[in-house]
Amino acid sequence: MAHATPSNPQGSKRLGLWLVGARGSISTCVAYGLAGLRAGALEPTGIATERDPFRRLGLRAFEDIVLGGHEISLGDLSRSAGDLVRHGVLTQDLVTSASSEAAALDARIRPGVLDVADVGRADLDPRSASLGGASPREKTDRLTEDLRAFREEHDLERVVVAYVASVEPWMDERPHWNELAAFERALESEGEFPASSLYAYAAFQAGAPFVNFTPNRGSSLPALRELARARRLPHCGNDGKTGETLLKTTLAPMFTARALRVLSWQGYNLLGNKDGESLSDPVRAQSKRRNKDAPLRSILDDETAHTRVEIDYVPSLHDWKTAWDFVHFEGFLGARMSLQFTWAGSDSALAAPLVLDLARLADFAAARGEVGEMEHTACYFKAPLAGGTHDFHRQFARLLDYAEQHGS
Amino acid sequence: MAHATPSNPQGSKRLGLWLVGARGSISTCVAYGLAGLRAGALEPTGIATERDPFRRLGLRAFEDIVLGGHEISLGDLSRSAGDLVRHGVLTQDLVTSASSEAAALDARIRPGVLDVADVGRADLDPRSASLGGASPREKTDRLTEDLRAFREEHDLERVVVAYVASVEPWMDERPHWNELAAFERALESEGEFPASSLYAYAAFQAGAPFVNFTPNRGSSLPALRELARARRLPHCGNDGKTGETLLKTTLAPMFTARALRVLSWQGYNLLGNKDGESLSDPVRAQSKRRNKDAPLRSILDDETAHTRVEIDYVPSLHDWKTAWDFVHFEGFLGARMSLQFTWAGSDSALAAPLVLDLARLADFAAARGEVGEMEHTACYFKAPLAGGTHDFHRQFARLLDYAEQHGS
Amino acid sequence: MAHATPSNPQGSKRLGLWLVGARGSISTCVAYGLAGLRAGALEPTGIATERDPFRRLGLRAFEDIVLGGHEISLGDLSRSAGDLVRHGVLTQDLVTSASSEAAALDARIRPGVLDVADVGRADLDPRSASLGGASPREKTDRLTEDLRAFREEHDLERVVVAYVASVEPWMDERPHWNELAAFERALESEGEFPASSLYAYAAFQAGAPFVNFTPNRGSSLPALRELARARRLPHCGNDGKTGETLLKTTLAPMFTARALRVLSWQGYNLLGNKDGESLSDPVRAQSKRRNKDAPLRSILDDETAHTRVEIDYVPSLHDWKTAWDFVHFEGFLGARMSLQFTWAGSDSALAAPLVLDLARLADFAAARGEVGEMEHTACYFKAPLAGGTHDFHRQFARLLDYAEQHGS
Amino acid sequence: MAHATPSNPQGSKRLGLWLVGARGSISTCVAYGLAGLRAGALEPTGIATERDPFRRLGLRAFEDIVLGGHEISLGDLSRSAGDLVRHGVLTQDLVTSASSEAAALDARIRPGVLDVADVGRADLDPRSASLGGASPREKTDRLTEDLRAFREEHDLERVVVAYVASVEPWMDERPHWNELAAFERALESEGEFPASSLYAYAAFQAGAPFVNFTPNRGSSLPALRELARARRLPHCGNDGKTGETLLKTTLAPMFTARALRVLSWQGYNLLGNKDGESLSDPVRAQSKRRNKDAPLRSILDDETAHTRVEIDYVPSLHDWKTAWDFVHFEGFLGARMSLQFTWAGSDSALAAPLVLDLARLADFAAARGEVGEMEHTACYFKAPLAGGTHDFHRQFARLLDYAEQHGS
Repeated sequence: MAHATPSNPQGSKRLGLWLVGARGSISTCVAYGLAGLRAGALEPTGIATERDPFRRLGLRAFEDIVLGGHEISLGDLSRSAGDLVRHGVLTQDLVTSASSEAAALDARIRPGVLDVADVGRADLDPRSASLGGASPREKTDRLTEDLRAFREEHDLERVVVAYVASVEPWMDERPHWNELAAFERALESEGEFPASSLYAYAAFQAGAPFVNFTPNRGSSLPALRELARARRLPHCGNDGKTGETLLKTTLAPMFTARALRVLSWQGYNLLGNKDGESLSDPVRAQSKRRNKDAPLRSILDDETAHTRVEIDYVPSLHDWKTAWDFVHFEGFLGARMSLQFTWAGSDSALAAPLVLDLARLADFAAARGEVGEMEHTACYFKAPLAGGTHDFHRQFARLLDYAEQHGS
Repeated sequence: MAHATPSNPQGSKRLGLWLVGARGSISTCVAYGLAGLRAGALEPTGIATERDPFRRLGLRAFEDIVLGGHEISLGDLSRSAGDLVRHGVLTQDLVTSASSEAAALDARIRPGVLDVADVGRADLDPRSASLGGASPREKTDRLTEDLRAFREEHDLERVVVAYVASVEPWMDERPHWNELAAFERALESEGEFPASSLYAYAAFQAGAPFVNFTPNRGSSLPALRELARARRLPHCGNDGKTGETLLKTTLAPMFTARALRVLSWQGYNLLGNKDGESLSDPVRAQSKRRNKDAPLRSILDDETAHTRVEIDYVPSLHDWKTAWDFVHFEGFLGARMSLQFTWAGSDSALAAPLVLDLARLADFAAARGEVGEMEHTACYFKAPLAGGTHDFHRQFARLLDYAEQHGS
Repeated sequence: MAHATPSNPQGSKRLGLWLVGARGSISTCVAYGLAGLRAGALEPTGIATERDPFRRLGLRAFEDIVLGGHEISLGDLSRSAGDLVRHGVLTQDLVTSASSEAAALDARIRPGVLDVADVGRADLDPRSASLGGASPREKTDRLTEDLRAFREEHDLERVVVAYVASVEPWMDERPHWNELAAFERALESEGEFPASSLYAYAAFQAGAPFVNFTPNRGSSLPALRELARARRLPHCGNDGKTGETLLKTTLAPMFTARALRVLSWQGYNLLGNKDGESLSDPVRAQSKRRNKDAPLRSILDDETAHTRVEIDYVPSLHDWKTAWDFVHFEGFLGARMSLQFTWAGSDSALAAPLVLDLARLADFAAARGEVGEMEHTACYFKAPLAGGTHDFHRQFARLLDYAEQHGS
Repeated sequence: MAHATPSNPQGSKRLGLWLVGARGSISTCVAYGLAGLRAGALEPTGIATERDPFRRLGLRAFEDIVLGGHEISLGDLSRSAGDLVRHGVLTQDLVTSASSEAAALDARIRPGVLDVADVGRADLDPRSASLGGASPREKTDRLTEDLRAFREEHDLERVVVAYVASVEPWMDERPHWNELAAFERALESEGEFPASSLYAYAAFQAGAPFVNFTPNRGSSLPALRELARARRLPHCGNDGKTGETLLKTTLAPMFTARALRVLSWQGYNLLGNKDGESLSDPVRAQSKRRNKDAPLRSILDDETAHTRVEIDYVPSLHDWKTAWDFVHFEGFLGARMSLQFTWAGSDSALAAPLVLDLARLADFAAARGEVGEMEHTACYFKAPLAGGTHDFHRQFARLLDYAEQHGS
């Protein structure tokens, strides 16, 4: 990642965190969680940047973060929160005490642009639906305008866009995604784009770093990587590493270190939330499944290993994703052994603190004038934009190095 | 670890590997495994030193390793091997094809000295039993003499002693263990010593590096650390990290890295072999249980975490130890989640390749003139002599550094 | 069980359910659950007697059950309920809507008598503490009087006493427990009794059937069985079969039916509630552990099977008990196989509906004039008073037969 | 099932057990297992009919069973046995000691007829392949002739055919399967038939009871049920209940009995043997998956329960099938709980003793003159021919009743 001269505006010390998918489960947890942190009602559990050595970086304080966002569905945050209370993710106490902050965020939420698969959904915000006929350029202009208005209205030093919307259907690569000039021509002429990439484009146009927490294309297109460099902005993604893949990339290096031969690694993911529902569509599941299998194969580095990732929709689990992995391996003397694990966690409560970490790190990188893929954030992603090892401990050591280097 | 001038004798290129507990399951797997490797009948699965970057160290070839050992029980290797065939650890084919090598090793096994708890066992070698009345000094002289005779008889460049005998009852510290002069005075005057420390003393007296794969005291006593430095010898231990603790020290850093709060970590170990039987004696289990709990507590670094390690003897499992760990943890918003894993592996097939790794690394360290605790081998042990982090990935990174630094 | 002539008083159709341990978790779930059922806010999930063929028995309607109870601790139900809300067992909505019913129950709770181990506890009701110096007879008189007053005050057709207090320390058998005359003499003369048996005595004296949901002695003493027969009352117990033992007694018969040989069955129970805390005292755990092991051994009927039950206190789990069982078994050709299961459930939410079932069945049995051990309820208990098979499916078939026979 | 007059021929007391798929893993285990039982080298573990009350039926002794069979692949039993030794199902000792019995069986194996999907396989017996052009009638004549020759050559009192071949592709119902006359007309005129049904037809023509251990159609076609009645023969099937489904049908009734509401039941089956390979073909997997799901749905009797059965091919497991089931259920107060289990067993060692049980029971039924579907064997099958409950314990109680009724 190249470095540019930092441009720290004077005056405001506040950061805007703009959530795409602003009433989804992750955003809801970010919003109530942030309110709880500010009120001292919550410990910063799960937020690595609140621990040393990251604390020494002087990252943006929770008090100085203002939330806003895009959303395509109708509703309000208290409804999403009610669901999460019913399923034991949020407490009623927190939801009650943070109701005015939630209402304020609701008021700042702007209609988003639809993805192909969203068209015709039941609960669509009519303002989002009515944008359906607009050209890609009109859409990005509108999104950029929302970001600028947010910055001005709240006198923010900087806005970071965090993309936490639903999984898009997989779309094969288009030639006009490969360079910025072609991309921008296609914007005018009805070219095809993943919605996530329109958001990334708009963010960069508005001078905002972009964090893509989903498997969607987002800012990973070569044209958008070019734009980020041109605008001297940092960005990171793709696909938050919150659960089974986190475990896989923690455990697989142990087998390699001990020269144990993994014969088969079967992973079964049971998801019950909107994400799980989307992924029960095989076309949408494709990108996710690939992101979950590739890190393992890369670490094992053995063509003969048999690996498989299944994602199943189990509605009763709601936000509590449950994964079972079975690892069959061979040791000395050809002895065949096994490891199996079951991981049961709240998808949103696992993701939300990582979104806060990444927003703060993107803010910090932008302040330092860092440009392009935030290589040091690889430990947060299943498919890190800057590539590199998938070994979680090596990735995290890289992040620690960054903190040691830049901490005061 | 200080460095001395290397003393590479000319002539023989052969290493003697002297196994204390020479007919136990681990030694049996070392012996048949080595034969299989030499015959090309086995892959070196589980032997990290056969992979890069360790291969570039030019470690001793399997062809150049000669086995010998001490043992207190009667019997022969083919009987131990029969047990391991019946329980699916060794194959009948390997045992049949290596029968003459096994018989040759049997002929080189010498009677060992008894530990307090061994007195009166049914299957004792009467030669070991008759040593019972000897003074500690007479015992160590006898053991040293066996090692010297082994070196001369087989024209060995060096002998490494690997201690793989049963777990001793825990013995509180004695003042005469703390410095060499007091230790040696007590040797003459009937002072109390763990048998494992007598073996370590004898090894150092014979100029042999010492590898302690058990939780026994071995060379960890200050007096013996002093002796190792005086004799300019490397040594390492204690307590091979082969299974549940390996997993714990791989997984626990992930929770710390993600700032997830471990509330409880319960570990249940089901063992069916001689080791399990020894450990069903609570006095013997004490050292093992401490070695299995301390690494976790050190990594979690949270006084409030509730941790527990149970070791239960389940005879039907024989060599197939099975562990279940349950980790209850808290994430963002106070959400409570869990991870559980079940590990099922052959204790001996997991340990044997590590013994081969360590013997080769101790040989290499001695050739380089390294003196004292082999700090770079910490990833092999539950309670590394040189201390340091218990985080498996950091420990292994340390070993990789060593290999990168000294490899050609 | 012998049959007496039924004695159905005219007038009131209401049943009093008197809970010993009235502010414990189970009672709290019974109280709020009953309120929810009456309000139509809850489905009768977990209450077998609400399904056919039991519905055809015409059991007491939820509307016609009045709660009361004994308790030795200070506090109120809303505090117990708050804990259960925080840990996801009760919902805040239910607790809020049932607050007046809870307050009414609080007002009906009377001070209980202490068990030996309760003396000196921090949160004791001083009225219970002050009873400490009373003679056993004075205590039973007091308890009986409370039951009678409850019946009269609320114009109840019948009172059933359900014992759901903490586990008592195990007490070896006393000669004066063996026949009623000796029991009653010892009541006058400071003989030793488990508190649970004093409650049972008092219940029978008050003409109330007694349900013992704990491993405590309760009404199982020969003297009290004699008293139940003399008073022509039904009773049942001991030790509710809610979780791991339920699974064991469901699964073990399958191994027997298939002639598979269970080599080892290890069961680990992780408990986090007050029950778990009591059981971390080995003396209290003794009765529970025996009750959890005996059914398995009785079903397997194989002296050589290795079985073990561990109970560990894991405070973070609170009410969510988690059990891991590992079954190692041998099939045809000596092939060794395994089954393992993990059960995670709310202890109180599992127990409470069984208490409701049993109270209704005891009421029905009393109405029919049944006398003595309620043999048909064996499927509810780890150590059924009337003995018989521990095979859950046979026990449940027995209950179905009873329902078919007596249903209209 | 109607009863006919028994027809016990005098003279020979030997039973012929004819295995279709005679060199598959199950048959190999039957053959070596029977040899081991006869030699007293094996315990009858897994063979329920060797225990009371079944022993009192006077079933055919193992000494009096002669094996033969059809097979479409080339090879010999010792090769199949070698595979099973390598994977720890059979011991080398047993295979060595039974080599002459295995060779004798090899000599009695006759070429089978191909299933559509078998055409073109690499290891086909050319005699089976050459039968490809024959008409269905020519095939059944040939099969019947083999059975008659077997009976005569070995002077057998009776022959039972046990079908243990691979899973066939699913074939939609044909009108000519529905009555015997149409079936027989179609035999002459190139109608389509599952190979398994041709074997069943041939068995009945030869006067042999038929046991179908696979999900294939076998004797379940109405036309063949008619033929069995006409020939006054007993038969049973389909699809042996050996593992995950056995557990499901043991556990699911517990949830029903306790009025616990199963929200989701996900079952994942990892298979590594030839069966697993066949089932990685979705068309073949269809019948198996249905047979594994239907029993659960039938027991739960709740339309809203979410159930799923996955079958994955994991070659490294070879014969050791591993299944993970996750049950999410709701208890009282809406509390959500879970049960998960992992079952790891040798597919063949689980199946073989059931084949022996069924062969003996079919022999006994034929001797008693029982005709048609052997209703009392339902506990052995995932899709019992006679229907009825899938609750394993009820099914087994039915079998016990049969034994009590007919035992001496």
